[in-house]
Amino acid sequence: MNTVDLIIKKRNGNVLSQEEIEFLVNGYTNGTIPDYQMSAFLMAVYFKGMNHDETVALTKIMRDSGDVVNLGNIDGIKVDKHSTGGVGDKTTLIVAPIAAACGVPIAKMSGRGLGFTGGTVDKLESIPGYHTAIEESDFINQVNETGIALIGQTGHIALADKKIYALRDVTGTVENLSLITSSIMSKKLAAGSDAIVLDVKCGTGAFMKKEDDACQLASLMVEIGNASGKRTMAVITDMNQPLGNAVGNTLEVIEAIETLKGKGPDDITRLSVKLSALMIYAGGKAETIEEGQVMAEDAINSGHALDKLRQLIAAQKGNPQVIDDYSLMPSTNNCYKVIASTDGYISSIDAMKIGVASQHTGAGRATKEDVIDLGAGIYLCKKTGDHVSSGDTIAIIHTDKENYREIISEVEAAVSICDKSVVPPELIKRYFI
Amino acid sequence: MNTVDLIIKKRNGNVLSQEEIEFLVNGYTNGTIPDYQMSAFLMAVYFKGMNHDETVALTKIMRDSGDVVNLGNIDGIKVDKHSTGGVGDKTTLIVAPIAAACGVPIAKMSGRGLGFTGGTVDKLESIPGYHTAIEESDFINQVNETGIALIGQTGHIALADKKIYALRDVTGTVENLSLITSSIMSKKLAAGSDAIVLDVKCGTGAFMKKEDDACQLASLMVEIGNASGKRTMAVITDMNQPLGNAVGNTLEVIEAIETLKGKGPDDITRLSVKLSALMIYAGGKAETIEEGQVMAEDAINSGHALDKLRQLIAAQKGNPQVIDDYSLMPSTNNCYKVIASTDGYISSIDAMKIGVASQHTGAGRATKEDVIDLGAGIYLCKKTGDHVSSGDTIAIIHTDKENYREIISEVEAAVSICDKSVVPPELIKRYFI
Repeated sequence: MNTVDLIIKKRNGNVLSQEEIEFLVNGYTNGTIPDYQMSAFLMAVYFKGMNHDETVALTKIMRDSGDVVNLGNIDGIKVDKHSTGGVGDKTTLIVAPIAAACGVPIAKMSGRGLGFTGGTVDKLESIPGYHTAIEESDFINQVNETGIALIGQTGHIALADKKIYALRDVTGTVENLSLITSSIMSKKLAAGSDAIVLDVKCGTGAFMKKEDDACQLASLMVEIGNASGKRTMAVITDMNQPLGNAVGNTLEVIEAIETLKGKGPDDITRLSVKLSALMIYAGGKAETIEEGQVMAEDAINSGHALDKLRQLIAAQKGNPQVIDDYSLMPSTNNCYKVIASTDGYISSIDAMKIGVASQHTGAGRATKEDVIDLGAGIYLCKKTGDHVSSGDTIAIIHTDKENYREIISEVEAAVSICDKSVVPPELIKRYFI
Repeated sequence: MNTVDLIIKKRNGNVLSQEEIEFLVNGYTNGTIPDYQMSAFLMAVYFKGMNHDETVALTKIMRDSGDVVNLGNIDGIKVDKHSTGGVGDKTTLIVAPIAAACGVPIAKMSGRGLGFTGGTVDKLESIPGYHTAIEESDFINQVNETGIALIGQTGHIALADKKIYALRDVTGTVENLSLITSSIMSKKLAAGSDAIVLDVKCGTGAFMKKEDDACQLASLMVEIGNASGKRTMAVITDMNQPLGNAVGNTLEVIEAIETLKGKGPDDITRLSVKLSALMIYAGGKAETIEEGQVMAEDAINSGHALDKLRQLIAAQKGNPQVIDDYSLMPSTNNCYKVIASTDGYISSIDAMKIGVASQHTGAGRATKEDVIDLGAGIYLCKKTGDHVSSGDTIAIIHTDKENYREIISEVEAAVSICDKSVVPPELIKRYFI
């Protein structure tokens, strides 16, 4: 096989065989195919696409390009959950304990945040002592003993994706459904769970701005997940405004705990219950999604889910007292209020702008090497649809950065107020079961 | 400016400004933009194209990326001629002396052959002593003294093209009209002549297989040449069978000399007269193309063109006696006949297959580093449309390679014989004046 011939074959709109895709992906991963040929190939894929079989093959080849975690020593149907990334999305910290409390084994690896989106691993590290780097054997033992483990993703999963994603990022070849799908699903398939629940975000703060695009992606990921032997479901959810009220690591952990105590914001509570219901159903612990939903609500109301979080924290060497005393977690020395200058209704809160402002507080990274301030972030006192009076606090900015005035302006610019009442955006838009 | 943004801009079908194209081409040439971004950009251009203004800008920026030859010290309208490359195309050796004999200053740089196409510089080196590497000042003096110089292209012309072409070759991004045009025209514009006559080949032995594609390329090159301030004309000519009878360096020089003696094959003579007529007209030495044609024919019949070739060879330290004694040029020790096994008419002689077979005789290079055998090649005793009887010699293979039997088979496979009479392909298909 010859790389140029394969680039031209795809460029001319032809379908590549599994062997041909394997030649390209493995050649690129092991360095025999140079960056400049792979980037030309990726641009050809951007224009000509890949069909179902090609996307399945690409995903499986990328899965097999690194370690594939074997969770066979854990009984039951292990369920993974993945969000395509957004602002204020702390659902993993809530749904994992709920599903585990309902008997679904959760053996989950998560990532760190970059840019305006947060990462579960950073959030977990707000809990003093919590270890996210756990050996595979300890990881499996912990799930067998407590029913749950939330750890950082090892560097050896889906090596081809790591290299190809870095190249796509700098060559204008990110926005292709097959490439996005294979990137996400190869990592999920390699992570070893038996079923996957996908939360595909859609809106200003999401990778997919339009609902149609999010639906196409969700549909393809579900198709490819199922075709690769994992029961896969997806839900399309709103990311036009941040999810919940808290954005920033400690702030989000507090909000997650509050939600497990039954005192969380309405949107995050509703979404967490829905996602948990899907996970409980996918894990075979409920006959229907509705039954899963009842079980999820019970797990919150009974305190069992909160207990499961406590066990998780203890198992991973964190201090479970944070659940009762939030002051044990990092916080900033300074807070600044963002005040409404007019009466009216919040018509929108631009999630991406809040995400960027939160990054500027110190809560997020511009580059992978940046050190973040776990206490920093933004707490929204108002959400879209809420009424405000002039002088009300719209948001509280937690930061020790000196440029807090700029951050205040950024948050002000993210929030629109109008004089007519506003219907908040629908949170859960569509299911792909 | 940001490279990824410009890749995405072109990928999305937008028009780039001159400054943006400059940023990309100069950044790539000086190494601040890496191969992998340029190849993704080139693939985006493959799919989305470039408009007239972008192509003009690209061509000029590439022209200015290296040395631009100043022929201002030569009086008169200097006329260049370029062929898009084919098999058996020795017209430069014929038309340059004809046009020079008619008073058009010829200060021409040529390239070497690669793959199945030949190069003028290799052909010239069949003449013992002939120097192709000449300093710019000597080059200009020679044109002023003798009216003609044919030298090798310096390595400093259109540096961006050199780097971009090498990348296109290995990334499946060769076949785009704007990229092809800018590649050819940037070098022609940098070579310093005032007018350019383009011979765009079309057929099995040419880069452009289809007449429509060749016409589009010719039309665009003429447009871009004129828009860049050089009077540019083009002619589309057949390259389904080799041009003339000789393929190979010495063999082609002999055929060129024979043509200047008025004893050349019909096709090469006709095409040379037509191209010379355009050059004489473009050089302002004839009022009309028809007048140019009469002058060209006179230059052959009077022997003035042959005298000009003699002067050229002498000026560049070659032995002009080759004109009267072909045995002074390199030849092979061995020749092999290809014999017709049936009666009939030659229905086609696949130019590419003959080019490849000629390369195998030692006359051409597979890689730039290969050393060629100047005496090797293929002489076609029959052309398309000719009648053959079983036992007739169709071709003579000049080679000292041991695998001559394979070459015989290759030539046999290139020649088709049928039992009905055949009209030879039209040699000159279209003009773009």
